[in-house]
Amino acid sequence: VRILFASETEKAEFWLPLLREALPRDEFVLETDAPVDVALVATPPAGTLARLKGVKLIQSLWMGVERLLADPGLPKGVPVARLIDPGMVAAMSESVLAHVLDWHRHHYRYRAQQAERQWRRRKQYLAGDRTVGILGFGELGGDAARKLHALGFNVAAFSRRPKQVAGVQSFTDLNAMLRITDALVCLLPLTRETRGILNSRTLGLIRPHGCVINLARGGHVVIADLVRELDSGHLAHAYLDVFDNEPLPASDLLWKHPGVSITPHSAALTEPRTAVPKIVENVERVRRGETPHHLVDFEAGY
Amino acid sequence: VRILFASETEKAEFWLPLLREALPRDEFVLETDAPVDVALVATPPAGTLARLKGVKLIQSLWMGVERLLADPGLPKGVPVARLIDPGMVAAMSESVLAHVLDWHRHHYRYRAQQAERQWRRRKQYLAGDRTVGILGFGELGGDAARKLHALGFNVAAFSRRPKQVAGVQSFTDLNAMLRITDALVCLLPLTRETRGILNSRTLGLIRPHGCVINLARGGHVVIADLVRELDSGHLAHAYLDVFDNEPLPASDLLWKHPGVSITPHSAALTEPRTAVPKIVENVERVRRGETPHHLVDFEAGY
Repeated sequence: VRILFASETEKAEFWLPLLREALPRDEFVLETDAPVDVALVATPPAGTLARLKGVKLIQSLWMGVERLLADPGLPKGVPVARLIDPGMVAAMSESVLAHVLDWHRHHYRYRAQQAERQWRRRKQYLAGDRTVGILGFGELGGDAARKLHALGFNVAAFSRRPKQVAGVQSFTDLNAMLRITDALVCLLPLTRETRGILNSRTLGLIRPHGCVINLARGGHVVIADLVRELDSGHLAHAYLDVFDNEPLPASDLLWKHPGVSITPHSAALTEPRTAVPKIVENVERVRRGETPHHLVDFEAGY
Repeated sequence: VRILFASETEKAEFWLPLLREALPRDEFVLETDAPVDVALVATPPAGTLARLKGVKLIQSLWMGVERLLADPGLPKGVPVARLIDPGMVAAMSESVLAHVLDWHRHHYRYRAQQAERQWRRRKQYLAGDRTVGILGFGELGGDAARKLHALGFNVAAFSRRPKQVAGVQSFTDLNAMLRITDALVCLLPLTRETRGILNSRTLGLIRPHGCVINLARGGHVVIADLVRELDSGHLAHAYLDVFDNEPLPASDLLWKHPGVSITPHSAALTEPRTAVPKIVENVERVRRGETPHHLVDFEAGY
């Protein structure tokens, strides 16, 4: 089959050697001048999607597809697949654990104390004294939930449909989950339903001195509301990896907020070494005329 | 039996209600004016140990017993038990994971970038690209090793005698372990053999851009040597929870070193809720004339 690689952010020189080695019989192209069977895309150059009418599969190189789906050039009727990359899922859980433990062990406070040369030990909690609430209970939320549970945390997870994961309390009622949550982790896809889901009303339901960890999309959080909850002392800290404008402008006040830890959309990057086998699986399914894995549900928006 | 509680650091008002509830038939005292059967101690008031000649067990309320053993008043021939508290072991693993992940996910660098309002993504590594070397492979090292292995890290552990833990490479040759180590975690007891074990020679063997995490005792690290390895860029970061002088004096230069994260000996505190059942076990063994658990090996020094 002919496979297009089109991305302004993912580097072809990292991906193509691995893809060519894994799919030696197939042809890889970087331009849309001739018809292709499969298109591998992440922020493709303007106009690329409109030229993919006859393609059998548009395979995202990322898990989040909201920009792809919002592109007016996306041809109707072409299946789009999200990439569920095991390396990226593991990376996301590492970032979740890093931030939950930073808050749980008071490290964000000890850093502030270090700046003041202050030696003061805070009350220790057991993991079993804390509840971590996860927004999104798919591949990412499920993996993070299992790993948090293994460390002894109480874990709750919110999703549209109830799910069964050992040791994790499944919620379809967001408010009910937030009321028992100390540390809130957002791993949702960005859709009409989830935009602005973390606002003054929902953030106010989190238990006092809790934290918010947003590793999903900037659009999930109403920043002014989050800052208000931090400034009032209701929330102890926020860990933000994603923003409406990325890179976050140097003029943004968030950079200097003492209650906010900022990372540069680095919580989990697609890892070509683990992603390529998943792409190969979908290419082989296309070759055999089978339905690819992880197809986007256009109605749900992810 | 009569049980003495003697500590200038652990608060009797937290411990006694739990102890009395768990051992309702026994008598608890706070003074050494009459003979006792068991002494529960952590930094006992001066002169306390010398008055414990006839006691059947000195039960430490801490895991580290080097100060107890160094007290010239410690009566000879009296068994001393370390406290292996499941809550404290879990807390230590939480702190190990928090620091390893902070380094692994570049969070210490992203904090420095945040101070400069700099958005710059660093190369992502998979856990399987990293080796965590643990000094000390007892209760603490074993628990941390299992949890790091479950996250996908390569794990090596150094101990005097080789041990078998699934997925963990056991070393009795310190240098051999350090040569494959990216993140070094010190959980050793402080003894004649381990004092100053982290010095310019051993730190120099750690792989470039690695980190050192000392959650054991200040005496394990030669601080001037560590600072040299940080300043040269050989080591990327150090996480220090313990110091020769605690509290760390406000005048100490370490407070302001950009490559050092300081916590106030808070990595793992004894947790009365989980420690009391372990103390009860040893009291019951004394009552039945059996050998208590976790007795100190005076020759080994822990």
